[in-house]
Amino acid sequence: MGNADYECSHKVAVPPSKPFLQSLKSGLKETFFPDDPFRQFKNQPPSRKVLLGLQYLVPILEWAPRYSFQFFKSDLIAGITIASLAVPQGISYASLASLPPIIGLYSSFVPPLVYAMLGSSRDLAVGTVAVASLLMASMLGKVANPTENPQAYLQLAFTATFFAGVLQASLGIFRLGFIVDFLSHATIVGFMGGAATIVCLQQLKGILGLVHFTHETDVVSVMRSVFAQTHKWRWESAVLGCCFLSFLLLTRYFGKRKAAFFWVNAMAPLTSVVLGSILVYLTHAEKHGVQVIGHLKKGLNPPSASELAFGSPHLMTAIKTGFIIGIIGLAEGIAVGRSFAMFKNYHIDGNKEMIAFGMMNMAGSCTSCYLTAGPFSRTAVNFNAGCKSAVSNVVMAAAVMFTLLFLTPLFHYTPLVVLSSIIIAAMLGLIDYEAVIHLWKIDKFDFIVCMGAYLGVVLGSVEIGLIIAVTASLVRILLFVARPRTFALGKIPNSGIYRSVEQYPVADKVPGVLILQIDAPIYFANANYLRERISRWIYEEEDRLKSTGETGLHYIILDMSAIGSIDTSGISMLEEVKKNTDRKGLKFVLANPRSEVIKKLDKSKFIETIGQEWIYLTVGEAVGACSFMLHRYKSNPNAVEYDAQNNV
Amino acid sequence: MGNADYECSHKVAVPPSKPFLQSLKSGLKETFFPDDPFRQFKNQPPSRKVLLGLQYLVPILEWAPRYSFQFFKSDLIAGITIASLAVPQGISYASLASLPPIIGLYSSFVPPLVYAMLGSSRDLAVGTVAVASLLMASMLGKVANPTENPQAYLQLAFTATFFAGVLQASLGIFRLGFIVDFLSHATIVGFMGGAATIVCLQQLKGILGLVHFTHETDVVSVMRSVFAQTHKWRWESAVLGCCFLSFLLLTRYFGKRKAAFFWVNAMAPLTSVVLGSILVYLTHAEKHGVQVIGHLKKGLNPPSASELAFGSPHLMTAIKTGFIIGIIGLAEGIAVGRSFAMFKNYHIDGNKEMIAFGMMNMAGSCTSCYLTAGPFSRTAVNFNAGCKSAVSNVVMAAAVMFTLLFLTPLFHYTPLVVLSSIIIAAMLGLIDYEAVIHLWKIDKFDFIVCMGAYLGVVLGSVEIGLIIAVTASLVRILLFVARPRTFALGKIPNSGIYRSVEQYPVADKVPGVLILQIDAPIYFANANYLRERISRWIYEEEDRLKSTGETGLHYIILDMSAIGSIDTSGISMLEEVKKNTDRKGLKFVLANPRSEVIKKLDKSKFIETIGQEWIYLTVGEAVGACSFMLHRYKSNPNAVEYDAQNNV
Repeated sequence: MGNADYECSHKVAVPPSKPFLQSLKSGLKETFFPDDPFRQFKNQPPSRKVLLGLQYLVPILEWAPRYSFQFFKSDLIAGITIASLAVPQGISYASLASLPPIIGLYSSFVPPLVYAMLGSSRDLAVGTVAVASLLMASMLGKVANPTENPQAYLQLAFTATFFAGVLQASLGIFRLGFIVDFLSHATIVGFMGGAATIVCLQQLKGILGLVHFTHETDVVSVMRSVFAQTHKWRWESAVLGCCFLSFLLLTRYFGKRKAAFFWVNAMAPLTSVVLGSILVYLTHAEKHGVQVIGHLKKGLNPPSASELAFGSPHLMTAIKTGFIIGIIGLAEGIAVGRSFAMFKNYHIDGNKEMIAFGMMNMAGSCTSCYLTAGPFSRTAVNFNAGCKSAVSNVVMAAAVMFTLLFLTPLFHYTPLVVLSSIIIAAMLGLIDYEAVIHLWKIDKFDFIVCMGAYLGVVLGSVEIGLIIAVTASLVRILLFVARPRTFALGKIPNSGIYRSVEQYPVADKVPGVLILQIDAPIYFANANYLRERISRWIYEEEDRLKSTGETGLHYIILDMSAIGSIDTSGISMLEEVKKNTDRKGLKFVLANPRSEVIKKLDKSKFIETIGQEWIYLTVGEAVGACSFMLHRYKSNPNAVEYDAQNNV
Repeated sequence: MGNADYECSHKVAVPPSKPFLQSLKSGLKETFFPDDPFRQFKNQPPSRKVLLGLQYLVPILEWAPRYSFQFFKSDLIAGITIASLAVPQGISYASLASLPPIIGLYSSFVPPLVYAMLGSSRDLAVGTVAVASLLMASMLGKVANPTENPQAYLQLAFTATFFAGVLQASLGIFRLGFIVDFLSHATIVGFMGGAATIVCLQQLKGILGLVHFTHETDVVSVMRSVFAQTHKWRWESAVLGCCFLSFLLLTRYFGKRKAAFFWVNAMAPLTSVVLGSILVYLTHAEKHGVQVIGHLKKGLNPPSASELAFGSPHLMTAIKTGFIIGIIGLAEGIAVGRSFAMFKNYHIDGNKEMIAFGMMNMAGSCTSCYLTAGPFSRTAVNFNAGCKSAVSNVVMAAAVMFTLLFLTPLFHYTPLVVLSSIIIAAMLGLIDYEAVIHLWKIDKFDFIVCMGAYLGVVLGSVEIGLIIAVTASLVRILLFVARPRTFALGKIPNSGIYRSVEQYPVADKVPGVLILQIDAPIYFANANYLRERISRWIYEEEDRLKSTGETGLHYIILDMSAIGSIDTSGISMLEEVKKNTDRKGLKFVLANPRSEVIKKLDKSKFIETIGQEWIYLTVGEAVGACSFMLHRYKSNPNAVEYDAQNNV
């Protein structure tokens, strides 16, 4: 043994190999049940298990028994507040989705009730969301014209909503919620910002009182559509729009500055609607270029299960639309729910939320609602108004029901320009330029992803932006693996610690030894690169040693601490490196292989190739052994021959 | 300072931040020029630089001056040997690609000459490859029928070859060669095996003497096509086929067993062709159901640049086919070149090889050749015959030229069944079941990827197999990042070393301290998972401590040694973990953040949040500080209040 004389106190253990099925089971558990949702079921009597199971599936059963009148008072106030926002927002977003305004009101009635039973967030206010509405209009608008064939368009919208619900529920049931994680924060910031920009520009239609408008969503088409019709701009509409927009922005500004003013902010949209409607009613501005909502049907949601267009020739478009808006709705809703849950220190189960969202949209699609999720603005108002539980959603639904039953005629004179102002005010809040600056400062690649999403949405379409951002995010992960960083390590003076000489310039290289560290798993995607890179490290080090006249290189130590995994291509790569170093007369030494890696090196017999005695627990011990051998050779040149004969 | 009294000798350095452009430049260099190809150009006079540049672009300029007559003798023998293989294989594979047999001969003339000038491998024998031929037939066969409209099909084949060349050359020029690395070894084994299986089954057409046959490539269609025509099976053809197949397999068996017999193996295909042709000529078997090649045009490659069908309505299919066969050809060719270069200890530059392949195929597409690459079988024969340089390719080209000019009439009576036998014998060597067993033993996921590719090819189509395998490989990388492994660390007795308690069961947990290690970069894709997983580690540890009655948990140390990178989502996750631990009264401590990570933690002010004094260079030092604090509190309970007041 080459280092038999050197005292090596620690051995790298090869962990006992688990049976295949057992390791498969634990792998599947970590992948699909990382949060261990069945933990509380352990060691419980069967009756209790059934109760817990029901409570798990229908969270209202868990918290309803503990619900108090005190809570109800808070929820009542919060519920009425969000209802005052829900009514104008519902109508506005429905028009954004090219749907009749009444659909927006319907959508604030059934889904919140479903969510109140199944959802696990106490703060989320359910409602339609701007981005999904815009997406629906742009995707479905390509195959069905909402003005020429409103019935077909409406059917496709319900069908898309149904499939969005199916997708959401399935993701939750099959515990594939982590797919949503692939929409990174940077992606969502850029995507939302881009969608908000487009929505704002589109509202110029309402502000300027235009009747005809493009269905495209890129900035060029929209601006061309606006400026091609300069002769049709209506100043009455524009003046009204600017006034209301200023009012909304001012109230938001004060609402943000002082917490006590938050009511002003929350009530501003409803106030605008009321003021606008009274103004139009008194001045008969609807006859002077100010468009109004017109007749709204009284009554609750009609059933729409029979409207689901499964036989439509555009079914595939509806499914595709449903999947995309479903994912977007989930990503936004879960991010919003999680943020507020963090404030109040409770936990949200992503997969359970997905099932709740899915059920709510499937139920919605059968009761004349279109896609609902958890809009940030409404949830923030709910939170600020002091909601205690999902009962605030029930209160909101009741208020909307009351509106549907008795108050719809009041909206007859509501000017569209007020709705446009409400949308613009809400959208401006979604353009989060501060987050973009933060991304630029901290992580340039995240910034690129964010701007890719933004520019893709603004210049191309919502889907293009999404594809660009997701692709860029995935490329980042793949590049991390395909081009891992490698470092040369040195010894930090007066210690036994070895660290990258790049990060710690005080660290000294060890004479005759090159210590390398790799930052990523060794997979097929980087095996070739690493082989090249390691040989480049070796010849660069040899060049350096030659130029400084130091002792030649004798040992290559590979620190495997950061190598989390290896595959068969990676093992072949190590075998090739071993061959190469052998040929150059260098000794290849491993330090600290992790359990996953050492198991595979063992199975593939690479441990035998390299020699168990050349695998050390720490870099320090490996360096110690190498230095010992170097001195042995120096002080006794015959040892080289002796060791060579004994096949060391 | 909470640990002011504790002697901490080492500090984690935040490396000085590089200017953005500089770090971008070094990042791009690592990504696209990892092998530092311009290293030899450094510090050279301009005239030498020009010469080196030319030698870099046209490798023949580098080795030709050193070429000796001794080398030529070896290359001559090797070249004639591979020519004896090239002629029958060329004809056979052309029929596999549904092309006229003569195209196969043309393809062994021009491309080897181009490769001899530009290629950097000394062993690679250029020629057509079975899998790409099969792929071409199955993809182009969908839009143009090779029997009904041979001219259009031929044009598409040349066009696809041209685009394959364009893709290959561009990948090399833009240094994107690493894309080929994403076809892992496991993928290629499965894919080749599947393709070989299909090709073998398809040869039943030739063996059984069938005239009509399916163009589908899945096993069901092929077998149905064979068994639907049982009444058309020709026993004469079948007997002949079985005889030649046995002959070929036997010679291969002996060729492999004894190195001296390798000639027998190398010459067997040509011998079969000669024997088969003589047999048919003497017995006139072509009139009894044994199909023959028939007339072959005499003369060298006619130019075909004008045949490139850029205006064809199926141009997109040709481009798609070209890209896929181009990538497959590259992957096989480069893998083969690298393996043999390793034997002889010289280096192959992947990007340069791609340019050579690209040029060779672009030149080929203009001279009536279809896709060529570096087939394994022919290269192995070349290597065994003792080739010294690419001159063996030139010799082969010369031999093929001679065949084209004078010998084509001799192939008139060559029976197709012999060609089928040659293909089957070659394909059976590609079904590498030993590699599959090796994959199963060492890496189950690689096995799944391999079987996915195999079954996809066999049951679906070549493209489906490829898509399945590449997707599975990528999912593996994404899963590695999305579901990183986390470990609890313990102290190895009588040392200051901390290692995973799972891998080293002797390691002891430190009382009051939970040490966690994460195996992957913290990215958006795993930030949510890690947050959940860390809180699960904490409550599981608390449960364990409660049940054993040990001291409670006070410190969470996160060992960041294996965290190579972090993005903004990751930083938010750490901030949330910090908030959570604060709320539970736990102290969150970091150990050994790497340069990439500490830079970002610094920029995002997370270092200030956590406190610079709670970041340690090693786990050992972090544990030391924590234990020190724990004892301080235990021995002096007032210290807790004191520290709390002083905001520790």
